[in-house]
Amino acid sequence: MVLYTINVPATSANIGPGFDVMGLSLSLYLTVTAQVSETDSSGTITLAYEGENQSGLPLDPRRNLITSTALYVLECNGFNEFPRATRVTVNNRIPLGRGLGSSGAAVVAGVLLANAVGQLNLTQQRMLDYCLMIEHHPDNVAAALVGGFVASYLVDVDRSGNIPASEADQAQREREQSAQAADSNIKLPQENIGHFLQLGCSPLIKAIAIIPQFELATSKARSVLPGQYETKDVVFNLQRLAVLTTALGREKPDPWLIYRAMADKVHQPYRMHLVPGLPEILKTFDPDNTPGLLGVCLSGAGPTILVLAIDNFDKIAAQVCAVFDRHSVETKYQVLDIVSEGATCQVSPK
Amino acid sequence: MVLYTINVPATSANIGPGFDVMGLSLSLYLTVTAQVSETDSSGTITLAYEGENQSGLPLDPRRNLITSTALYVLECNGFNEFPRATRVTVNNRIPLGRGLGSSGAAVVAGVLLANAVGQLNLTQQRMLDYCLMIEHHPDNVAAALVGGFVASYLVDVDRSGNIPASEADQAQREREQSAQAADSNIKLPQENIGHFLQLGCSPLIKAIAIIPQFELATSKARSVLPGQYETKDVVFNLQRLAVLTTALGREKPDPWLIYRAMADKVHQPYRMHLVPGLPEILKTFDPDNTPGLLGVCLSGAGPTILVLAIDNFDKIAAQVCAVFDRHSVETKYQVLDIVSEGATCQVSPK
Repeated sequence: MVLYTINVPATSANIGPGFDVMGLSLSLYLTVTAQVSETDSSGTITLAYEGENQSGLPLDPRRNLITSTALYVLECNGFNEFPRATRVTVNNRIPLGRGLGSSGAAVVAGVLLANAVGQLNLTQQRMLDYCLMIEHHPDNVAAALVGGFVASYLVDVDRSGNIPASEADQAQREREQSAQAADSNIKLPQENIGHFLQLGCSPLIKAIAIIPQFELATSKARSVLPGQYETKDVVFNLQRLAVLTTALGREKPDPWLIYRAMADKVHQPYRMHLVPGLPEILKTFDPDNTPGLLGVCLSGAGPTILVLAIDNFDKIAAQVCAVFDRHSVETKYQVLDIVSEGATCQVSPK
Repeated sequence: MVLYTINVPATSANIGPGFDVMGLSLSLYLTVTAQVSETDSSGTITLAYEGENQSGLPLDPRRNLITSTALYVLECNGFNEFPRATRVTVNNRIPLGRGLGSSGAAVVAGVLLANAVGQLNLTQQRMLDYCLMIEHHPDNVAAALVGGFVASYLVDVDRSGNIPASEADQAQREREQSAQAADSNIKLPQENIGHFLQLGCSPLIKAIAIIPQFELATSKARSVLPGQYETKDVVFNLQRLAVLTTALGREKPDPWLIYRAMADKVHQPYRMHLVPGLPEILKTFDPDNTPGLLGVCLSGAGPTILVLAIDNFDKIAAQVCAVFDRHSVETKYQVLDIVSEGATCQVSPK
């Protein structure tokens, strides 16, 4: 038997102004192990969960996001099923539906799983292409795959400058086509559809994730966005993002520089009513009244609040939790490292 | 007599996706000398121009942008006029109305002039505040003042998070109020209204400015912008800008990474018709067919085209000029360094 152990970090997308752009990898993991039989070439998959938060997740390998992603990648590479009987065990510590990249992590894990069991030798870039066929916003998957503080985008597929009206929509359409396609006619991703760049991030910075105990569907959090923005709001975010991408990488983080650069007018103002307490949290805490704090934002589509800080982590977490408490929102929190390494796959004969 | 020599670099704003955010300082200068009499305390200003491109510029010190800015700053600091009789000579090599920051340079020169003749000892941050009272978009003035590749923005004046609906409009209103105010009631800028951050820029990169021989008023180039943007275009620019701010600073620039990160959907598409040849130029040249090229953009509000490159500067310039030629647009070009030092003021007793 061969044992593969895949670890994929949780991620926080957006980080204030970087809507659908930025991702941070966090020290909280989805772990998938695959025990591959050396004798049984039947392709049977057994799927089991360990850990919390797993109720309602499908154990049917064609419906589960990790194994269905793996099957899609394998089918793109000439397999009809897993090459050998495989026992997949999922241990997930990333809470679901909280804005911490759980579905992105599942997609990345699925691609790494296929790469391992199919011995596909995919490059990181090619793995990202596959991820983007399933999850068409690159922010979480790129950060989960690459690690650290990552900027990413879907590229124009046409070098002549004729950029499709919406590259994201395009990827989504391709995904739908591929889902409809027969196995023999499965839709391969184009090469290099996702670009990414790992930016600097000071090792002094930790991320405090304050996690409300309710789920918020990304689709719902997207549906409240206006679809149109005035120039002043566009420029507001462009200005902050330009500063933020460099400010986090400075050896000695400048709290007010980062705090101001984490302001946003593109998504957070529209999502305020979805997370009770969020308006107060964004307004209350700043680097002067909360020593150690660098900035506060909604993690991904929420409801998790991400606080970047360099000190007083538990104290800051308690203060933010107290605001949620006043709004009758139950929370848990975790102080997490920003991990420079993304998804990994280790192999051990057993 | 004391002689002050002020040098202010030309600047290119926007750099593709960084609309109203980014500025690059270029090795092309506005030079202002001020000969201050040690005997005549009358405050008389004489103003003279040297160099090209100066016809039509006012020589009345209250109307000329450099000296009127200096007078405003002096008046904010308790002077009614220049402290002593001063002979101001302007030698400007920055072409006017071409998108190379000539008016921003004049404002910066005016602030440095006041700082020198009034011995005001203003900090760089405070000088930026004054600049922003005259020119309320910070991109050009911040880059001209600070040097290098600069991200900037007008900050929220209220720490509690109550950001004015439009900070730029606010600064403009304050400026109008100050213009109407009597000398005794002049409007001082608030402290720290402009924030800036100098980003990294590889010393290998040069900027080729291809300068059409016609003027394009910034107000006209702004009037064609739509005022509203769809989410996909906003995200497009945020994604590119996040990459660009880091990509230019890499020791060995990656041409395709930079080229793609210089794409824009916020201003350039709407300004295409104002600069004949621009659509063809943006579409024609890329790092594969034009070795040495990193990226192409409109410089500020245009009509100048800025090409970032690491090699074949004159050859690239000739190719771009040839496209303009086919569109019957007369051009000049200059190969410029990106200068890490911004505006300077040297003093020499004479």
